[in-house]
Amino acid sequence: MREVSIIIVGFGKIGRAVARTIASKDSDIAGEFGVRLKVVGICDMVGSVLDEGGIDLGKVAEKPWGKHKDFVGRKTIDVIRSLKADIVVEATPGNVSDGEPGLSHIKAALESGKNVVTSNKAPLVVAFRELKSLARRNGVDLRYEATVGGAIPIINLYESELKPNTINSILGVLNGTTNYILTKMSEEGVEFDAALKEAQNLGLAEPNPEYDVKGIDTAAKVVILSNALLGKNVSLKDVKIVGIDEITPEAVDLAKEYGFEIKLIGDVKNLEVSPRLVPREHPLNIPGNLNAIMLETDIAGPLTLVGAGAGPKETSSSILSDIIAIAKKL
Amino acid sequence: MREVSIIIVGFGKIGRAVARTIASKDSDIAGEFGVRLKVVGICDMVGSVLDEGGIDLGKVAEKPWGKHKDFVGRKTIDVIRSLKADIVVEATPGNVSDGEPGLSHIKAALESGKNVVTSNKAPLVVAFRELKSLARRNGVDLRYEATVGGAIPIINLYESELKPNTINSILGVLNGTTNYILTKMSEEGVEFDAALKEAQNLGLAEPNPEYDVKGIDTAAKVVILSNALLGKNVSLKDVKIVGIDEITPEAVDLAKEYGFEIKLIGDVKNLEVSPRLVPREHPLNIPGNLNAIMLETDIAGPLTLVGAGAGPKETSSSILSDIIAIAKKL
Repeated sequence: MREVSIIIVGFGKIGRAVARTIASKDSDIAGEFGVRLKVVGICDMVGSVLDEGGIDLGKVAEKPWGKHKDFVGRKTIDVIRSLKADIVVEATPGNVSDGEPGLSHIKAALESGKNVVTSNKAPLVVAFRELKSLARRNGVDLRYEATVGGAIPIINLYESELKPNTINSILGVLNGTTNYILTKMSEEGVEFDAALKEAQNLGLAEPNPEYDVKGIDTAAKVVILSNALLGKNVSLKDVKIVGIDEITPEAVDLAKEYGFEIKLIGDVKNLEVSPRLVPREHPLNIPGNLNAIMLETDIAGPLTLVGAGAGPKETSSSILSDIIAIAKKL
Repeated sequence: MREVSIIIVGFGKIGRAVARTIASKDSDIAGEFGVRLKVVGICDMVGSVLDEGGIDLGKVAEKPWGKHKDFVGRKTIDVIRSLKADIVVEATPGNVSDGEPGLSHIKAALESGKNVVTSNKAPLVVAFRELKSLARRNGVDLRYEATVGGAIPIINLYESELKPNTINSILGVLNGTTNYILTKMSEEGVEFDAALKEAQNLGLAEPNPEYDVKGIDTAAKVVILSNALLGKNVSLKDVKIVGIDEITPEAVDLAKEYGFEIKLIGDVKNLEVSPRLVPREHPLNIPGNLNAIMLETDIAGPLTLVGAGAGPKETSSSILSDIIAIAKKL
């Protein structure tokens, strides 16, 4: 059985979910793909747990960080550079203005000949082409299915199933928080502020909600989809962005009267994020905090994928799928 | 450049669309996958066009069959057995009671060491396990993305992206004709017979509509999904089937009053086809003749794909995707 060694960088909700998913699917993956996934390092800001023989994931994901017997104070970037591993999973929270700390992590991994799987949008928004060519030069792979649409395998689906198609348009409901707020406003007739507060109480919106409600998160995903699926070389400043924070209950009601719902749409072809009217029966009219992505293609016609846009476990499904894709090629 | 030779069997709407799609995507496929697709034979009931150097597809798809300069009276099964080719595309219309003539075509192809791509449900409904093991014994591949959900790449998506997931349920709107009829009844309040007549006038329903409206087509797809994605070994007789031909406008209205639509649902886990109430905002509540398939998985959560369930061009997208998957492995 081929062993594939992994370093998990960032051990918050997503990093822990990745550890749990690898632990729970260990024998299925071995049986179906003939691959044994072995996590040899886990790094977070405060230090790292390292074990070349394979960290016991059942225990590490549930315990307070820093109390592990193999915990060392080594810096993440050091571990990425010097520890022997096939794949680095980068799952730190990102900062879309400079892409750090993920950008440095990913560069260090690629430069030291390691494949990278990331759920972190920021480095890709800042330096997509640079990172892709760095991967190519080092003969390794950079995969990022988890950065857009959580569990929805849009990028790999296009690569593996739809590639001969020409894409005429990509429209998406790409942010679960704003979709939850708009759904609440529509279903219950409440004001934006009240719906936002409820989303915050449920943990669906951050205490500082600007990144979501101003449309920046959606725009980051538009940038990634444009670069990945349309072959462009764009960044956040190329996207025209209007958020949902000025939508009123009256506007929502008026839309409904004519058979429409207001959704925050990321328009990848036109590099635009804005609230748009979506017919009630349209595949992009999805409720709650779901995400949806609609591709218009020349042969397959319109194809829409609807699924969980966030959630650590759901996101770990996309990360695992990228890990397996790399493992198959090793 | 690696040449991949193809025999197209069945030159009706789908076979012709496959020829057109290969012709139009020829250079894209060569550029992206380093593969040159060469159609060396096209067979239909009345005879075959054969050209080992590659048939000029631009011309053959548009011309009346039988007038081609390379037309010969050779029998399809003969051509499949004796002509040298990498892949046989089986696109004849099928008969779900005995699977013929596709079943014999596919067997002959697999036995003579050719890979098979099919859009024909019937042979798979009748003999799924037998054909899969015949393929395995002959060291070739049998792919059938086009048999379920037209352009929706549900089978390959699961295989390539979701495989480590456990599937808890598969529910689908798998027949465009019945969905068109139910949508009409809901939107316009018309009787079943009137909606069916309109579907027939638009070419969306066959003159003999029983196969669609009695739920048999949906059941055939349930059988294929159960065998393909859940690893079962079931056939049509294992599926409990209720069609839509006794749905009244009153039932549709009553459902709407409570916020539901009536949809013909294929329930793959429970091997059941029946009209069910679907909440208005549910991802399976799709209008017109669209298809939708919803997988409930343990890690990725619920994932729904919505797209064109039929149409020759759309179906040819799935066939081409299967062809490329095989070509990559050759």
